[in-house]
Amino acid sequence: MFYLKNKFMQQSFKYSALLFIVLTVIVFGCKQPQTKTNETEQETAVSKDPLPSWKEGTSKKSIIDFVTKTTREGSADFVPVTDRIACFDNDGTLWSEKPLPFQLYFMIDRIKAMAPQHPGWKTKQPFKGILEGDLKTALSGGEKALLEIAMATHAGMTTDEFDKSVKEWMATATHPKTGRHFNEMVYQPMLELLDYLRANGYKPFIVSGGGIDFMRVWAEEAYGIPPYQVIGSSVNMKYDTTLKPPALVKLAELNFNDDKLGKPVGIQQHIGKRPVFTGGNSDGDYAMMQYTSTGSGPRFGLFVHHTDSVREFKYDREPGLARLNNGLDDAKKYNWVIVDMKTDWKKIYPFEK
Amino acid sequence: MFYLKNKFMQQSFKYSALLFIVLTVIVFGCKQPQTKTNETEQETAVSKDPLPSWKEGTSKKSIIDFVTKTTREGSADFVPVTDRIACFDNDGTLWSEKPLPFQLYFMIDRIKAMAPQHPGWKTKQPFKGILEGDLKTALSGGEKALLEIAMATHAGMTTDEFDKSVKEWMATATHPKTGRHFNEMVYQPMLELLDYLRANGYKPFIVSGGGIDFMRVWAEEAYGIPPYQVIGSSVNMKYDTTLKPPALVKLAELNFNDDKLGKPVGIQQHIGKRPVFTGGNSDGDYAMMQYTSTGSGPRFGLFVHHTDSVREFKYDREPGLARLNNGLDDAKKYNWVIVDMKTDWKKIYPFEK
Repeated sequence: MFYLKNKFMQQSFKYSALLFIVLTVIVFGCKQPQTKTNETEQETAVSKDPLPSWKEGTSKKSIIDFVTKTTREGSADFVPVTDRIACFDNDGTLWSEKPLPFQLYFMIDRIKAMAPQHPGWKTKQPFKGILEGDLKTALSGGEKALLEIAMATHAGMTTDEFDKSVKEWMATATHPKTGRHFNEMVYQPMLELLDYLRANGYKPFIVSGGGIDFMRVWAEEAYGIPPYQVIGSSVNMKYDTTLKPPALVKLAELNFNDDKLGKPVGIQQHIGKRPVFTGGNSDGDYAMMQYTSTGSGPRFGLFVHHTDSVREFKYDREPGLARLNNGLDDAKKYNWVIVDMKTDWKKIYPFEK
Repeated sequence: MFYLKNKFMQQSFKYSALLFIVLTVIVFGCKQPQTKTNETEQETAVSKDPLPSWKEGTSKKSIIDFVTKTTREGSADFVPVTDRIACFDNDGTLWSEKPLPFQLYFMIDRIKAMAPQHPGWKTKQPFKGILEGDLKTALSGGEKALLEIAMATHAGMTTDEFDKSVKEWMATATHPKTGRHFNEMVYQPMLELLDYLRANGYKPFIVSGGGIDFMRVWAEEAYGIPPYQVIGSSVNMKYDTTLKPPALVKLAELNFNDDKLGKPVGIQQHIGKRPVFTGGNSDGDYAMMQYTSTGSGPRFGLFVHHTDSVREFKYDREPGLARLNNGLDDAKKYNWVIVDMKTDWKKIYPFEK
């Protein structure tokens, strides 16, 4: 978060989801994660070690014990296949989110790419700041500035045009620290967890503050999670029959903010069932985790704790978009597993040797 | 439509979806449709006649030809499994909708059941009319009255409480003409079509003006369509942490009207892909059908045409909630198949001998 300091970061944004709108990344054209299983080709056999990038320890054991007991016929904790709903946050849970949420890089790059068609942006904040590389000034306008940037890059076009812009960006843009395409910066242990859950009849959904349509473009390739299992923040849309062919136009109006207390609501709107297994990494996921863990019967919640400043990024309780504070405080109360990235994960990214 | 005549029926309701909120019906406790295939147990073998309740003819041949050509590897019209999205309206497409949309019977019965807790309803329309069996007067208040009835029965409670009310109703209420439970009045040929599509890698979704949470309670049992593949109209919700356990409360505010131009929007919000195969039965489905059929590559659209006054109900162009007028006019333009229930279907309901 080195670009964003002080009051901007410390505000509680009604539209903080819009930052996250830009948060996830993908792959058309990139190497597939090594263990991805297509949803339509579920594996039924469980390999000897289903989580090879997880070190032996409490976190790994808790996961395997839970999956085993909920899928063994006759077990007191058996969960029918139709109820095996798993929900995962995306930013910081399935892929990295530092130094800035990845979807914000998309927005910045899109503003630059779209600038020739918008000559007025040269003199108008927040666009001026972005075009001049002065992100601090650009974002000093807070929520309003962020919303302007989000809407300029996520609305006023058809869904197909938006998808194309995400695909093109993902194929070319790279992360400032690793130099990797953003969709390569997914967590290998979490890919294995997704596969392990699918192999055991769980259906994983993404439940993210990020933009639903932004994530859908690359989530199937990156995680094996199809578009209809992606839940996120969204703008309103209009079915426009004056276009040929008729198409859906994204409007510059927020439809749904899939963050914090919004996550359980998004889960109900899209899934219609209380999840059994949930993973998150920040207090933005607290409500979704609590909603899961207070359901009757066996429930599992895990927080990915960012403890590795060398291989990834280290952050938790400091104020900011990705703060994990209440989640740590209440982990014991809800029996949440705190996954220590530094000690629990042998490998962070698939590209590591 | 014998209860509802004149101007009430002829109005174009902004909230007509709310009528449909009550439209579909299910089964906990009822006999399963004979051919239902669970989504999680997809069949891969195709029986000799996959559509035994469909008479040989243009409609049946069109369906089989389309599915065959889009699933044969190497075919110019091959559609990858991940794109095999099928969308079906519910009321009048998968189950009956006359003399009143079934969800409206739910609302009426719920008002009666809830009346002891609402003594004021005895003297206040539209509740007074419903309690006295005078539906005409109750609904003479038009859209506003309908909305009041819908919200009284669909909001102000948790999602679990609402689900319970639907389950109980479905297990006990019966249709005024057939005497059957409402969830028995599903169309056998459409159940076979759903199975046939699933067996060929298509993923069927419900896209209905009816209430999303109303349908979810019984759609999996009736059609093999799980809750996360049901799209419908909805109210806003609030995640209420003051309840023990925390739960989602349904609010008396319309969130989304999944009808007419809303259907393509609902499809994008929930699925994120343009469908390949779509079925409907009224002009409320026109936009969804058009959205499907104007996509590139092979697309299929069918309208169920209610032509059988003896075995089901006969209606099409007359004004009303379930009007099929523009759809018939433009069927040739979009290459839509008009399924003649009287001549194309050997059997309407599973319970027929």
